Amino acid sequence: MKNTTQLLKQLNIDYPVIQGAMLGVSTPKMAAEVSQAGGLGTLAAGGLSPEKTIQLIRETKQYTAKKFAVNLFAHDVPREIDIQDFNHMQDFLQAYCKTNQLPFELKKPEDLHFYSYQDQIDILIDEKIPVVSFTFGMLNPAAIAALKKNNSQLIGTATAVQEAIALEQSGVDMITAQGVEAGGHRGSFLNPDQLPQIGAMSLTPLITDAVKIPVLAAGGISSNKALKAAILLGAAGVQVGSLFIPADESMAAECYKNAVLNAADEDTQLTRAFSGRWARGLSNAFMKAVEKSGLKIPEYVVQNSLTSALRSYAQQNNLKDFISMWAGQSSSKAVRGKTRDIFAALVKDGWE
Amino acid sequence: MKNTTQLLKQLNIDYPVIQGAMLGVSTPKMAAEVSQAGGLGTLAAGGLSPEKTIQLIRETKQYTAKKFAVNLFAHDVPREIDIQDFNHMQDFLQAYCKTNQLPFELKKPEDLHFYSYQDQIDILIDEKIPVVSFTFGMLNPAAIAALKKNNSQLIGTATAVQEAIALEQSGVDMITAQGVEAGGHRGSFLNPDQLPQIGAMSLTPLITDAVKIPVLAAGGISSNKALKAAILLGAAGVQVGSLFIPADESMAAECYKNAVLNAADEDTQLTRAFSGRWARGLSNAFMKAVEKSGLKIPEYVVQNSLTSALRSYAQQNNLKDFISMWAGQSSSKAVRGKTRDIFAALVKDGWE
Repeated sequence: MKNTTQLLKQLNIDYPVIQGAMLGVSTPKMAAEVSQAGGLGTLAAGGLSPEKTIQLIRETKQYTAKKFAVNLFAHDVPREIDIQDFNHMQDFLQAYCKTNQLPFELKKPEDLHFYSYQDQIDILIDEKIPVVSFTFGMLNPAAIAALKKNNSQLIGTATAVQEAIALEQSGVDMITAQGVEAGGHRGSFLNPDQLPQIGAMSLTPLITDAVKIPVLAAGGISSNKALKAAILLGAAGVQVGSLFIPADESMAAECYKNAVLNAADEDTQLTRAFSGRWARGLSNAFMKAVEKSGLKIPEYVVQNSLTSALRSYAQQNNLKDFISMWAGQSSSKAVRGKTRDIFAALVKDGWE
Repeated sequence: MKNTTQLLKQLNIDYPVIQGAMLGVSTPKMAAEVSQAGGLGTLAAGGLSPEKTIQLIRETKQYTAKKFAVNLFAHDVPREIDIQDFNHMQDFLQAYCKTNQLPFELKKPEDLHFYSYQDQIDILIDEKIPVVSFTFGMLNPAAIAALKKNNSQLIGTATAVQEAIALEQSGVDMITAQGVEAGGHRGSFLNPDQLPQIGAMSLTPLITDAVKIPVLAAGGISSNKALKAAILLGAAGVQVGSLFIPADESMAAECYKNAVLNAADEDTQLTRAFSGRWARGLSNAFMKAVEKSGLKIPEYVVQNSLTSALRSYAQQNNLKDFISMWAGQSSSKAVRGKTRDIFAALVKDGWE
């Protein structure tokens, strides 16, 4: 439990539980509630504009005086878009939306604008964000230096041992070891063609052995017993996402919450259909249709942009077939309720 | 730990550790050593002839008076072979063997003979085998009734909750919950087109919640800490395979043992190349060549038969590129040594 003691001290929190950032699900209120309860709440800011990032940070600060983390996508914005792939996918999506009576917004490749995490670093420094977590890659050395100068703790995301070692060498303070069970986007970045799919039972001890800094286990942490099991495996703490999807403070659509609560173990799949990046979510009609099309899916953030109108409409109109219902393999363990109660149940018998 | 107490009583063993059956790796001597040490050794008999089955059982009995399990493949033998797929694959393999200076044995589809587990049941009864484990499906009701009448304990293999429920309903006494981390063949049988790939951190508690009988966690059980973590997650005990691959009593080729010891977390993959059935093993040239061929791989046992000469030759000649080096995602945790020492290290600090 030495690792846990170090983690609690390093983050100055009471419980070794970090709430996972879930764009489109987690909210400032959720992050604040987790931090208030003694864990570390996280604001999902990956890919957001600087303005939106500031707004969400300030909103969170209104709810809590405690520290919380801000999560970034450490991802290079694509320099060139393959116009042919873009057009084929857009044509397919246009026809698909028409068939399914969904609104469609035609985009021109040259008009697309993608935000970079680099546009957010100064904000995090100005706002004195104490913990910055990130996924999809490594922050560049300048960003790391600037955040460290500001006394931010940095948490990188690894899905394989080599990624964990690379992150440690880059200077991060902790690593989230993301098992294949985890919902949402895979953090994989070193070998994108061969997506690592390593179960938490293997990944947690392997990464813990390979690095000296504290490791947070993510994926399948669905109960107090799983929290304890992860710590036995060598993790200092855990990151928990799916358990909070049906929380009162979640902005997931009702149909999405229900799908999570009723999910069977086999109901999730890895897909690139919604964003262009591999992610685990509950299977639905849209994923299957994109797969069946046989089209080459444009890379992240391009595909994400092509599907954004569809996803927003589906979320607003509670249409589960077109929402990216990111969820992990233990989703069915989630229950409805207040974030604070979900958190309390998770830590109720401690972590040893 | 109630589950573990029940398991130990039910199997009359000292430690809640079952040695996984590994055809081509585990041996009568290994099974006997595990049983002698207080666990449950297992003889891999899946797909073997009745004669070979008897021989191995008698050999094991010479090494130990303690109980051991015999593992079967509860798989229906294919009724019809797709001749075109068979011929295309055989042509490919013939050319591949020529290029790689490997012997090749031309087979005629009509001459193939496959053994069924049904040919082995009477032997297990005559030999009074106290524990019969199986994978790839469910034993038929007659076989279950006959074995139960003989007071055999039955252990089925599940890779998803629905499989565990089906097995419990069929009357088995225990279930091995095989996480995606596990090496060797996947036990999946209910939905072969959509191979369940559920990490042990999710699968173990989900199956434990879904059935009343004891559950053995398999996949990623690479240390005493992992054993304890699995039991915390609700398992009554564990099944361990990869840790025993480099044992002195293993019949794995030296190159295979070395590959396991030096495996990185990302070195294994799921493949149908060797046997026609999905299995996790260390990537090698043969797997990649079959994948690259783009050919339709005949189903199990057909493909297994087509590659059998190649595999035997490679094993005898220590050629790692052509051996089916089945191994789990935690393989690198294995060490050389006597089976009894590997077992002792695994259970050294108990299971609570």
